[in-house]
Amino acid sequence: MSDEAFHTKGDPAVKEIPPKAPDLSAWYTAVTLKAELVSYSPVRGCVVLRPYGFGMWENLQRELDARFKDTGHENAYFPLLIPEHLLMREAEHVEGFAPEVAWVTQGGQETLTERLAIRPTSEVIIGVMYAEWIQSHRDLPVLINQWANVLRWEKATRPFLRTMEFLWQEGHTAHATAGEAREETLKMLEVYREFAENVAALPVYAGAKSASERFPGAIETYSIEALMPDGKALQSATSHDLGQNFSKAYDITFTGADQQIQHVHTTSWGMSWRMLGAVIMAHGDDRGLRLPPKLAPIEAVIVPIVKSGDDAPLQKAREIGAALKKAGYRVRVDDRDQKPGWKFAEWEMRGVPLRIEIGAKDLESGSVVVVRRDLARGEEGQKTTVPVGNLAAELRPLLSAVHDSLYAQAKAFLDAHTFRVSDRAEFFAKCADRSGMIDIPWCARPECEAYVKAETSATTRNTRPLEPGDAACVACGEPAKVRAFFAQSY
Amino acid sequence: MSDEAFHTKGDPAVKEIPPKAPDLSAWYTAVTLKAELVSYSPVRGCVVLRPYGFGMWENLQRELDARFKDTGHENAYFPLLIPEHLLMREAEHVEGFAPEVAWVTQGGQETLTERLAIRPTSEVIIGVMYAEWIQSHRDLPVLINQWANVLRWEKATRPFLRTMEFLWQEGHTAHATAGEAREETLKMLEVYREFAENVAALPVYAGAKSASERFPGAIETYSIEALMPDGKALQSATSHDLGQNFSKAYDITFTGADQQIQHVHTTSWGMSWRMLGAVIMAHGDDRGLRLPPKLAPIEAVIVPIVKSGDDAPLQKAREIGAALKKAGYRVRVDDRDQKPGWKFAEWEMRGVPLRIEIGAKDLESGSVVVVRRDLARGEEGQKTTVPVGNLAAELRPLLSAVHDSLYAQAKAFLDAHTFRVSDRAEFFAKCADRSGMIDIPWCARPECEAYVKAETSATTRNTRPLEPGDAACVACGEPAKVRAFFAQSY
Repeated sequence: MSDEAFHTKGDPAVKEIPPKAPDLSAWYTAVTLKAELVSYSPVRGCVVLRPYGFGMWENLQRELDARFKDTGHENAYFPLLIPEHLLMREAEHVEGFAPEVAWVTQGGQETLTERLAIRPTSEVIIGVMYAEWIQSHRDLPVLINQWANVLRWEKATRPFLRTMEFLWQEGHTAHATAGEAREETLKMLEVYREFAENVAALPVYAGAKSASERFPGAIETYSIEALMPDGKALQSATSHDLGQNFSKAYDITFTGADQQIQHVHTTSWGMSWRMLGAVIMAHGDDRGLRLPPKLAPIEAVIVPIVKSGDDAPLQKAREIGAALKKAGYRVRVDDRDQKPGWKFAEWEMRGVPLRIEIGAKDLESGSVVVVRRDLARGEEGQKTTVPVGNLAAELRPLLSAVHDSLYAQAKAFLDAHTFRVSDRAEFFAKCADRSGMIDIPWCARPECEAYVKAETSATTRNTRPLEPGDAACVACGEPAKVRAFFAQSY
Repeated sequence: MSDEAFHTKGDPAVKEIPPKAPDLSAWYTAVTLKAELVSYSPVRGCVVLRPYGFGMWENLQRELDARFKDTGHENAYFPLLIPEHLLMREAEHVEGFAPEVAWVTQGGQETLTERLAIRPTSEVIIGVMYAEWIQSHRDLPVLINQWANVLRWEKATRPFLRTMEFLWQEGHTAHATAGEAREETLKMLEVYREFAENVAALPVYAGAKSASERFPGAIETYSIEALMPDGKALQSATSHDLGQNFSKAYDITFTGADQQIQHVHTTSWGMSWRMLGAVIMAHGDDRGLRLPPKLAPIEAVIVPIVKSGDDAPLQKAREIGAALKKAGYRVRVDDRDQKPGWKFAEWEMRGVPLRIEIGAKDLESGSVVVVRRDLARGEEGQKTTVPVGNLAAELRPLLSAVHDSLYAQAKAFLDAHTFRVSDRAEFFAKCADRSGMIDIPWCARPECEAYVKAETSATTRNTRPLEPGDAACVACGEPAKVRAFFAQSY
C-alpha cells in the first residue's frame, strides 16, 4: 500500500496503520500488531497476548472479577482435559462441540486407550464434579466462576475475534429451582451489559438468542451485542439457562427440604478476550487505538520535551510520574531517546487516554499540558493546561471525561445505525447492505431466519418482548412473537 | 481406621482427619479433601482446585504478582500448544521433558501432520517469540511473566505436590549480558525467599542446585527448599540462569551498541501451586489446617452463639462482619443452622487464623472473644476479649501475631532438624533416617551424589560457598568445593 493511502503521513508510528474506514479489517490487523497487543505465533490459529494486550486483559479481569464476587461468586479451577466418554453424554452439546475439539491421544511414550479432549468449554467436567459435591438443598446454590484457557479447532485466525486457543471466564452455577436459575442467567447478563457500558464504554443490546443461535444444550441463551463500524454486530458475552439438560446428563441431584430427590437447574455464562476486539474496533480511529481508560494499561503517558543539555523536563517527568503512581494512576514516563513528536504519535497509536507534556516553558509556569486522545487534533478541550500541583486531582475527572466521550460517540453511532423497519423490502435491503442493527417484529420461526440469512447473510442477534402495536413479522408476514435485531455479524 | 486413632474425638469435622505425626501422607490427603481445598477428578492425574483452595492461590498470585511488577516485570500469555519440531531444538531440554509430554494428534476430524505438545513449560514458545521481538540492545531487557496451566505426564497424583496438570507462574527474561542474566536469576530467587518467609510463613534455604539437579538446559539453577514435618525437603520454587543455551537454539540475537550481532542471555523462574502443599504440610496440626493469614481465603470467621428465640447475636455478627469487610478484612459470618461447637471445629480444621465468637453475654459487655488458630487450646494468649469498637484496629496485629508464631514454629523446627555434620557415618545415618537438612562440606562430584542417593535416598537440595575451615567432603573425603544441604525430598 502506498504512503498516500495513509491519513497522517507525518507520523512515523501512524504511517504504518492504514486508515480505518476503507478497510476495517486491514486497519484492525495492523493496529493490533503495531500497538503490540498481540503477535502471531508459529502455532496454527494461536496468537500471543503481549504485555500491552495482557494489560488490557488484566484490567478486564479485575473489573469483571470484582462484579462476580459482589454477586456472591467464587473462583475455582477445573482440569483442562476431558475424557471422551464424559464429553459424549449431553447430545446437543456433543453435536455442537465435537467438530471443534483438539484431542490428546499420546502421553509420554504411551498411546492412550481413551482420547482426552482439550476443553472447548467446561460444562461437562464441572457437571461431573457438581454431581459429587451437591447432595442436599443446603449445598445450593453453587456459584462458581473459572478464568481459563479453552481451545476450539478453527481454521481462520483473527486476533481476539477468532483464535484456536483463547482466554475467557466461564461461570457455572447450580440452583434448586428453574426460577432461581433463570434469575441468575439474567443477573449475569446484566453484569455483562453494565460492564460493557461502564468499563468498555460500549453500548450494547441485551436480549435472548433465537433457538438456532442458542448454546448447544441450553434452554435459553442471552447475549449482549455491540455494533462495529462496518455495520456488523459482535456478540460480546453470553449467559445460558441450561435448565436440567446437563443435570440430567451428568446426574446432578439434590435432596430437597421435602426429602424428594430432584435434578438441579444449571446456568453458564462467559466473556472472552473477544471483548477486547470489540473495544479496539469500536473506538479506534485513523491514528490508531483509543482505549477506554478503565481498560487502558497506561492511563497517562508522560512525555518530557527534552532539549540537548537540559534534562530538567526529564527529571520533572520522573518526579510527576512517581507522584501520580503513588496517587493510584497507571502512568508511564517515556524517557526513551526519541523525538517528542515520534513519541506523541506512538502513544496516540497505542491509544493511551491522556498524554502529559512537560517542556522547559511548562516548568517555568509550573503547569503542564494534558492532551486527550478521544478528541480530534485541535478540537475544543483536547488540550488543557494543568498546574502540576493539581494533576493528581484533575486526572481522574479527565479520564472520566474520556470514557464518557468514547461512550457517547459509540452510542451515537449505534443509535444512527439502528433501524426500526416496517417495510419488507427495506428490511431485506438494509440487512444485505450491512446497515447496522435492523429492528423488527419477528415471527421467531427458524425457517424465516434461515431464509433471511440465505438472502442477506444477516441473522437475528437477539430478541426482546413485542411492543404495543407489533403485529406481523416484517420478514415474512406471519404473526410476530418477539422484537428482534437482525444484523450481519462477526 | 477406628475412631480411637483420632486425636479430637469430640469434634465432628476433626474426627475424619487422622493425627498428623504417625502418617503425614494420610493426614495430608484427608485434610486437603475435607477442608475442600481440592477434589479428585475423573481425569487421570488431575485435581480440581475448589473455591477454598483457589482462594489461597489467588492470595499467592496477588502477593507474588505485586512483587514481580515492583521488580519491573509485565505479564503476557503464550500459546498452550507447541509444534513438535520447535520443542526438539534444545537438546537437553528435549531429553528432560519429552518423556513427560501429552501430545495432541487430532483436531476436529483431522489427523495432524505434526504433533502438538501441551506445554510442560514455555521456554520454547517464548524463545521463538523473543527471537522475533528482539532486534536491538534497546529492546533489552525483556522482563515477562506468565500465569498459566502446564501439563506433565505423571503416574502418581498427590494434591498440589504431584499432578499432571498444575497452575504456576513462569518468568522468562532476556538480557544483553551474562552478568545481567545472573543478577536477574538471583533477584527472583530472593523474591521467592522473601515471599516464602513473609507471606507463606515458611523459612527456606536458598542456594544453587547441583549439576544433576539442574533444569534441563540451564547453566545454573537455584532453588528455595522448605523442610516438611517428616524430615523430607520440598523444593518450593526455582530460578534458572539459561545462559545462551536457548538463545542459540532459538536464534535470539540483538545488535549491540557496538553494532555487533550477539545472542541474548535468558533466565526463567517459577513457583507453582506446590507452594500451597508446602504450606499445608508445614503448618497444619492434628486439628487440621493452620493457614498463614496472608494466604488464608478467610482471615477471620465470625460465629454467633445463637440460642433458640434470640437472634441478637446473629444480627450483631452480620453487623460486625459488614464493618470488618468494609475495613478491608476477608471475613465470613457463619450463619448456618448448626451448633457453634460444630462450626468451631470445622473452621479450625479449615485453618482460619482467627475466630470471633459472639454470644448473648458478649453483647451485654460490648465485647467479643477472638480465638487464635495458631496456638493450642488453652495456651496463653489463645483467647482475647476485644471491645467491639476496637475489632477493626486489633485484628491486624492479631493476624500479624499469627503469622509470626507460625513462622517461629516452622523456623524452630527447621533449626532443630538442620544438622551440621562432620562425621561420615553420622552423615549417612542421618540421610538414611530422614533426619532433616544435613549440612556438609561437599565435593560437588556427581558420582559422590549418586552414591549417597543409592545408599540413603538423599540428594543435594542446594549448595552455597564453603565456609572458613571447610576442607574435605564429608561424604567421600575428596576436597570440598561447596557447602551442601542433603535431604530426602518430595
